[in-house]
Order: sequence, then C-alpha cells, then structure tokens
Amino acid sequence: MGKVAVLGAGSWGTALALVLGDNQHEVRLWTHRKEQAKEINETHMNERYLKGIELPKQITAYHDLQKAINDVEAIVLVVPTKAIREVCQQLKGLLHHKVTLIHASKGIEPDSLKRVSEVIEEELPKDLYGEVVVLSGPSHAEEVGARHPTTVTVSSTDETLAQHAQDLFINESFRVYTNPDIVGVELGGALKNIIALGAGISDGLDYGDNAKAALITRGLAEIARLGSSMGANPLTFAGLTGVGDLIVTCTSSHSRNWRAGHLLGKGYKLEDVLDQMGMVVEGVRTTKAAHQLSAERGIEMPITNGIYNLLFNQKKPKDVVDQLMNRGKTHEVEELPDDLSNQTL
Amino acid sequence: MGKVAVLGAGSWGTALALVLGDNQHEVRLWTHRKEQAKEINETHMNERYLKGIELPKQITAYHDLQKAINDVEAIVLVVPTKAIREVCQQLKGLLHHKVTLIHASKGIEPDSLKRVSEVIEEELPKDLYGEVVVLSGPSHAEEVGARHPTTVTVSSTDETLAQHAQDLFINESFRVYTNPDIVGVELGGALKNIIALGAGISDGLDYGDNAKAALITRGLAEIARLGSSMGANPLTFAGLTGVGDLIVTCTSSHSRNWRAGHLLGKGYKLEDVLDQMGMVVEGVRTTKAAHQLSAERGIEMPITNGIYNLLFNQKKPKDVVDQLMNRGKTHEVEELPDDLSNQTL
Repeated sequence: MGKVAVLGAGSWGTALALVLGDNQHEVRLWTHRKEQAKEINETHMNERYLKGIELPKQITAYHDLQKAINDVEAIVLVVPTKAIREVCQQLKGLLHHKVTLIHASKGIEPDSLKRVSEVIEEELPKDLYGEVVVLSGPSHAEEVGARHPTTVTVSSTDETLAQHAQDLFINESFRVYTNPDIVGVELGGALKNIIALGAGISDGLDYGDNAKAALITRGLAEIARLGSSMGANPLTFAGLTGVGDLIVTCTSSHSRNWRAGHLLGKGYKLEDVLDQMGMVVEGVRTTKAAHQLSAERGIEMPITNGIYNLLFNQKKPKDVVDQLMNRGKTHEVEELPDDLSNQTL
Repeated sequence: MGKVAVLGAGSWGTALALVLGDNQHEVRLWTHRKEQAKEINETHMNERYLKGIELPKQITAYHDLQKAINDVEAIVLVVPTKAIREVCQQLKGLLHHKVTLIHASKGIEPDSLKRVSEVIEEELPKDLYGEVVVLSGPSHAEEVGARHPTTVTVSSTDETLAQHAQDLFINESFRVYTNPDIVGVELGGALKNIIALGAGISDGLDYGDNAKAALITRGLAEIARLGSSMGANPLTFAGLTGVGDLIVTCTSSHSRNWRAGHLLGKGYKLEDVLDQMGMVVEGVRTTKAAHQLSAERGIEMPITNGIYNLLFNQKKPKDVVDQLMNRGKTHEVEELPDDLSNQTL
C-alpha cells in the first residue's frame, strides 16, 4: 500500500485518515499545531476532534509539511475553505513530484466566489496533479470513526484520477461512488449549508417537520437552479452530495450549520451565535456568496435571500420564514431549474 | 363558502377537515363508525386520531354517507388504499351530482398494482367528477392540527380541478402547490413508504445518519427509476411529494412505516411488528407491489428487493443492509433514471 498525506487534522481530516489507515496505507496526518501532532503520536487519539476513537497505527501526525508530503502518491486537503489558498501556496514551494490531489472542503471562497478546485488551480501548477479530485457526501466524522456504513462521491474531470481516489478510500464500511460532475459535487456540498441554516432556523422557531421538509425540498430546487446556471448537472443535486448531504446536515444536531440556524431561530444575534459555536460555520459565508451569485446571474433564490436578510440585514427569523411560506399560489414545477421544466423526461 | 365532504376520520382525514373548517367551509366528516361520529359531534375532538386538538365548529361528523355527500361541491377521500374500492362502490349508488373528487391516500393496490386514481376511475363513472385530483406531500397530521406551516401538492390532469382543490385548502399555514404529473405524485407518496421502512431498519440496526442518508438518496433514485418507467416525470420525485415526503417519513418517529422498519431492524418478526403497531402499515403492501412491478418492467430496485426479502423471505436485516452497502464500485449517475443520464442539463 502507498503513502498518503492528509492535510488538516480536524474531525473530517482525522476520519478520512482513519479510513486510509484501515486500508493499510501509510498515512501522514498534517496539522499546523505542533501540540496536536504530539498528542496524536503519543496517544493515538485526536480527542478533541474525534472523541474516544483509537486511530490506526498506520497514522503518524506531522507538523512539518515538507516531511508529510515527501514521497506520497496522494494528498488529501481537508482544511476550511478560507485556508485552502494559503495551504496551496505553502505546498507550491515544497511539492516536487506528481500526486493525486483530493480535497474534501465544502465551501465557496468569499469575494472571489470561486469553488475550492478553482482556488487550488489558481495557486498550484497543474503539472503537479493534473486535475483536482473532490470527495464529498453525507458523512458525520464520528460515524466514520465508529465504522458505521457511509457512502461518499469522488469527482474529477479526469476519470482515472477519480478512480485512484476511489481505490484509496473504498472499503466495507466506506463506500465510494464516482461522478464526473465536479461542479455539481462541489456546489452541492457548499450550498447545502445554507439550507441547513434554514432548517435550523425553522426548528428553532418550533415549526415542525412539515415546515422543515418543505424548506429542504424547495431549498434543493433553488440550489439546483443556481448550480445549473454555473454548469452543474442538476441531477447531481438529487444524489449523495445533494439530497444525501442535505438530509444528514438538516436533520442532525451534529451539524454546526443546523445548530447555528437553531440558535438564530431562537432569537440569538449572529455575533453571539458565532461566539458560542467557537468553530467555523461555513454556511454563513456561503450564504453571502450565493446571495451575490444569484444576483449576478438573475437566479431566483428566495430561501437564500431570506437567510441573507436575517444574517446581515437584521430581519427577524419568524418574518423571514413566514414570508417564504406566503409566496402566493404557485406551480411546483416552476420551482425547478428552467432547462428541466420543459422536458417530459 | 361551500360544502365539502371528507370521507375517513383517521388522523389525516381529520386534519384535512380542520384545514377546510379553518377556511370557513361547511365540512362533513364521514366515518363508518357511529360511535366516532357521535364523539366528534359531542366533544368537537377526535381524541384518538388528533389528540388534544379542538376541531372548528364548521365540522360536523356523519355516519350516513348519503347525508354526508348531499349537495357538496367536493369530496375528499382519505381512507386506507385497500378500502378505496369499497367506498367508491358505495358512492356510486349515492352520488347523483358532479363534484370535485380529491383523494389523499398513499398506496398501490395489491395484486392489481393500480394507483389509487386508477382504482377510483374503475369504480366511479367519470361524468361524476371529470378527472381525479390527488393531494399529497410532507405532512404529519398532528402538525397540521397545530397550524404549523405545511406545504402539499395537488395534482390532476385537469388543471381547473387541481386549482379548485388548491382554492379549497390553501391558507396561511397550509400552502398548496399544483403539479400536472398525477402519476409521479401518486407514486411518490406510495413508494416513499418502502424507503421509510428501509430507513427504520437501518436505524434499528444503529447504523447512523450517514447510512440512512445514503439509503434515502439511493432509494429516491430507484423509486424515480420505477416511476419514470410508469410514465411519471422523474423531477416530481425531487419535489414535495418525493424528497419532501421522504424526509418527513424517514426522519420522524411519528411515521408508522419508519417505526415498523425500526422494529424489524431490532430483529422482530413481521407478524409481531404488525400486531404491535395495530394500524395499517402501507409500506409493507407497497413493497410487495413495487417488487412485482420492478420484476415485470425489468427495473433494478436493490433496496426494494432487499426489503422484500426481509419481509417475505426471512432474510436477516443486517445481511440485507450490508449487501446493499457492498454492491461494488459504481458510478453514481448509473443509479439515476436512464433517460436522464444522457443529458447534460
């Protein structure tokens, strides 16, 4: 088995390292925090991020990025979206051989409004990896740590590279599908966090399961609409990285985005919510990005815009949700992407 | 406001009667049980089926079907699928004027494998109603009773009739969309119960949210595949009566189908589960029907067939779910309906 570097030792990075370790790869788990690397190597645990899980012996933690990537066949990037550019800049000076480059970050870069693979391509010469692979899907890290059955999708415009990623990760409890639509897979993972915020807000208002299901369904239609205008296959949003991830994120209190929404629905202010979470809430930044994208492209996104107004324009949660419920009599098919609505399928 | 008869005073029939009552219609809620009609009229409650909810004064319960339908502009059929044929046969002798006929039953008739609207058309002359309207969507009756926000879809091949149904039901907390695809709306409501059983089984095995999300997503793809072969628009399965209803049914312990699946996952036998439920579990019969339909039409439905084997061929829940997880490396798009997979969309 080969050598693989996982960059980022948060919950998801550690869980992915564990899957690779189970598959007998030599795994180098890199963290920018020296103390954390030391803890992992001494205890074979990453207690703060993957509580109670003993890590496979195949995993070694590194604080030195050069040593971590030396001689590896693949690099898995699992850092927050806002850190992607910086880590790629560091990699650029250190990486001198070709690798399969896989990322597992779910977000859109603020201001530039770029997808993660686009950011990587801007910072890292393509001759080092060919095409980026993204890994995404419905997956709580804790459950992966417990070897509960999990399925994810890997996607790249180069099918051979996607298959390489599939081969590295696939095992009995971690199933890996391929999908050639990288735009859809990346956007699904990022945009679903907006709808998770919305589901949390609805739950925070105690509006119940019917309201939440409606919000998720109509949210799915509007992110598919935006995705479709950006070149994604809308069907990808009906798959694991769309519906699947949406369900896991919107119906579980494990989800940070849902939890942040829940507090907002209870009436807490955004600053206080972010303070209280003490972790990255990607959905907040993604809402801002999607709001801007929908305006630029003339795509109707009532749920995203409602949440944007709640986050940044002091609108009240109840007013936002009630307004969404009262948009007049409509045809359901009008909610679906334009290029689908004329088809008999 | 007009007169409307609701036939069937279970949870969902009573909740729909309440919405119509809130809209100031004169509502006749028919039940074949004399005692239940008496209780509703004396207490303005239907305690067993809609606990703790005071019913609007506009609702009167009837035990006499002739009196209930006399002079009404619309009839709403809300009886279990297996009772539809019998109630239509009774109606045939009693109905002598044209009405808007709406049904809200989610099932496929065993053996005949017919949708509910097809059964109605076989038993009731079309000059009494023109085209059938179906009402479906993600909706726990208890939440409708509490006036929590709820959205549903009405569908008919006659748009005017669908709009009439929309006008009767729509109000601030009960949003009604229209969708012309009656085949998809009926099949979505029925087939989703199979996936709800599966989600319950996975939860009963303590497999976690990742496994459940994968099962729901791949279940959605397979019911869309079957629906598409029967003339439904696969996009309907991405809407309220597909994804939406699936989410509500698969993630809530309110759902009978989920609860039945949960007990099966814990290792109980089918007979014992049905005994313990003491209520209709539509998903069990629907699994049998869908299993037969998929064989006849050559549609691959691994989840449905797995659940069928568990229900009727003594397969163990763990073996069924593990087998579903280990179907080899696949492309996600291959899971989607054939006539969609060639499109760039």
